[in-house]
Amino acid sequence: MIDRADLETLARMVGPDNLLTNQPELAPYATDGTKLVFAPDAVIFPGTTEQTAAILRLATEREIPVIPRGAGTGMSGGALPVHGGLVMSLEHMNRILEIDRENLVAKVEPGVITAHLQEAVENVGLFYPPDPASLHISTIGGNVAECAGGLRAVKYGVTRDYVLGLTVVLPTGDIIRTGVETMKGVAGYDLTHLIVGSEGTLAVVTSITLRLLPKPETQRTMLAFFPDVAVAALTVSRIIHRGIIPTILEFMDRVCLDCIREEMAIPVPADAGAMLLMEVDGNAFLVEQESKKIQEACEQGKAISFEKASTREEAERLWQARREISPSLYKLKPHKTSEDIVVPRSRLPELIGVLGELSSRYGLPLPAFGHAGDGNIHVNIMHDKDDPRERGKVVPLVRELFEKILTMGGTITGEHGIGITKAPYLEMEIPKPGLDLMSRIKKAFDPRGILNPGKILLP
Amino acid sequence: MIDRADLETLARMVGPDNLLTNQPELAPYATDGTKLVFAPDAVIFPGTTEQTAAILRLATEREIPVIPRGAGTGMSGGALPVHGGLVMSLEHMNRILEIDRENLVAKVEPGVITAHLQEAVENVGLFYPPDPASLHISTIGGNVAECAGGLRAVKYGVTRDYVLGLTVVLPTGDIIRTGVETMKGVAGYDLTHLIVGSEGTLAVVTSITLRLLPKPETQRTMLAFFPDVAVAALTVSRIIHRGIIPTILEFMDRVCLDCIREEMAIPVPADAGAMLLMEVDGNAFLVEQESKKIQEACEQGKAISFEKASTREEAERLWQARREISPSLYKLKPHKTSEDIVVPRSRLPELIGVLGELSSRYGLPLPAFGHAGDGNIHVNIMHDKDDPRERGKVVPLVRELFEKILTMGGTITGEHGIGITKAPYLEMEIPKPGLDLMSRIKKAFDPRGILNPGKILLP
Repeated sequence: MIDRADLETLARMVGPDNLLTNQPELAPYATDGTKLVFAPDAVIFPGTTEQTAAILRLATEREIPVIPRGAGTGMSGGALPVHGGLVMSLEHMNRILEIDRENLVAKVEPGVITAHLQEAVENVGLFYPPDPASLHISTIGGNVAECAGGLRAVKYGVTRDYVLGLTVVLPTGDIIRTGVETMKGVAGYDLTHLIVGSEGTLAVVTSITLRLLPKPETQRTMLAFFPDVAVAALTVSRIIHRGIIPTILEFMDRVCLDCIREEMAIPVPADAGAMLLMEVDGNAFLVEQESKKIQEACEQGKAISFEKASTREEAERLWQARREISPSLYKLKPHKTSEDIVVPRSRLPELIGVLGELSSRYGLPLPAFGHAGDGNIHVNIMHDKDDPRERGKVVPLVRELFEKILTMGGTITGEHGIGITKAPYLEMEIPKPGLDLMSRIKKAFDPRGILNPGKILLP
Repeated sequence: MIDRADLETLARMVGPDNLLTNQPELAPYATDGTKLVFAPDAVIFPGTTEQTAAILRLATEREIPVIPRGAGTGMSGGALPVHGGLVMSLEHMNRILEIDRENLVAKVEPGVITAHLQEAVENVGLFYPPDPASLHISTIGGNVAECAGGLRAVKYGVTRDYVLGLTVVLPTGDIIRTGVETMKGVAGYDLTHLIVGSEGTLAVVTSITLRLLPKPETQRTMLAFFPDVAVAALTVSRIIHRGIIPTILEFMDRVCLDCIREEMAIPVPADAGAMLLMEVDGNAFLVEQESKKIQEACEQGKAISFEKASTREEAERLWQARREISPSLYKLKPHKTSEDIVVPRSRLPELIGVLGELSSRYGLPLPAFGHAGDGNIHVNIMHDKDDPRERGKVVPLVRELFEKILTMGGTITGEHGIGITKAPYLEMEIPKPGLDLMSRIKKAFDPRGILNPGKILLP
């Protein structure tokens, strides 16, 4: 555990202003997107890679748990100090170091807010596609730690697809450069992609080299309502069969539609059992052509209604349902457990069938929405925590849901990570030999187990 | 070392027809794309994941080196039995297990030849982009082991960008599934991408789940000659600035052009100092629009000549130079050492300057060609091995070249891997703490060091 002498050493390393030890100041660092609370002993803000290294060297020597943290928007508890210790906030390392227009590469510190990077690169005609819902708050460092996804993943992939190289500090204090600053590179083991998505358990990232794309010329937003999920899913298939990979292909089920019906600026047809929000982007001619083909596919798919936005304002109207769905689910029940499971895209109707069956058997609403394009669906278990009978149903329901998902060739987490909330279920997806190998890899990075203990791998 | 009893056990595991032990039969398995020769003690052909596991379990128990092998086209010696032992050829596990048109996913065994998979998926309107030059011989398993690149990487990325999940056997015989069969997934550490490019040193891959794309509607090939590399490179920049990422953006320098001049069906202008071969693909309208913009960029870039193919035959004529360049370099000198270095795309002119200086100082021709789009340039050190003075120059020249590349923010290998040929230089790119970490990771997979010993990491 951290003692007074450690705190004095740490204060000398970063300056006293960059170390918090008083209870009220610590409070914001005790929680994250899960709303769970674990108190840290102190919070430190390194300003450089070298300071990060000095802190970690001391932590390994003194066996002090260090919990790296971005903006604390994580959905699986990755930034929570479950065993106390030192929260290491990378917020102060927030410079965009370089945007290289010639080589389509950006170099940033981990504390840069995702949306800030996106604006900066778009201002010079470039594009950084990953767009987790939290992008106006979340940091690139946090996105790298969790391998954040987002709505555009179906066409553009996720964070890992844009990380070319990293500067990281190992728990022992060694500073390592991984990967490359170029488009290709195969020298040695791919440490870069091992660290992306490792949820701050292997190393602390202090700089990130990202691949960029040219900014798409334009985009077009469309919205369609369908009588049921089966025809909506068939429409998704038809769109893909026509050789179109839309930028956005979002889905919402009947339970969700019932929750947002009243607030919607555009009418939700009474007989609507599913909604698809679609966007295509790129060359203006191609965007027109593709949106026409999508309209045809929707009509062929017996869409009850179809709308295509012609202006940014119209597009915003179509986006309204998707933006408001998450909070409006609380109409159903006061508490929500959200799982970001993935199934192969074609099995979406089967998943909705499974949810219907579980919902009626457990007597809890299970509204589902999310990324139909890549099969990553957010399933929400609505319940009342204050009712012990309902509270007790959540864990068995989650376990049963995960079992079904895995037999369908899916995964228990598409973009939120394992953290602490999914750690008890990880062995359902990854049998023991795989988990044992991961534990040995963890040890290769972190021999004393000081970095973000208690996450992903249970002891 | 392998003894008679081991051979008997192995023969029982796979059947006597799937184990070679006689000298003449072993010869083809003693070499690879490097033309270096190391004799194996035996060659085994597992037919299933379970047989692979049984073989590896025995090998770890008896400390027998096992060298996994695809088609043996590797350029850095990854498949060579440098310490003897058992070559494990995956050639017999060559089934395409599934092409899933709904979810754009293919599942294959490692012995499938890359071009066979490409044909099979193109027959159903899909596309597997990675195209290493050896694709008509090389296997997907070998491509995964080396993270093979190719000509289309500038637009479509490399092998790692298409691998969703793997079945692998650890050296200890444990069978593990890594990754997912879906578009997204972040459960646990990313073992998939750690194993891709690990050159058969961490695990033996026995099945591969690949992401596919819709097949592009059409493509268009263009060829331009420029007075020098600087204007050719400026043209590459102009193309990218116009928001176009071509599928192919291949480059050839003056020394190369002088070698192929006589054989070319189309005239190579006498004053040509650089050539660009370009291809765009996708929607027919867009392809026309982009090829027009590329033509403009070439004209603006003072191209001496510009040709655009209208038919498949014309395109083949334009491809001739690129296809024939490698063998025609032997006109310069009887032997060739080929390095696949990478520099940031914008630094190509600087690289060519460095090569000119090294060439005149060492008195050896250094023709360069390759992937201008991603900065991955094949530099060929032409020499006469039988002349001891020339032979002695190669290693110091390579070392000096690598030093320059690394100060330019590049890497010593873009797609060929480290294997044995680049292992002595790896520490120039990755300092000791990084190599030590890789050694610890190797140990986490392979505690007795039986899998492909002597590769990547020197003892």
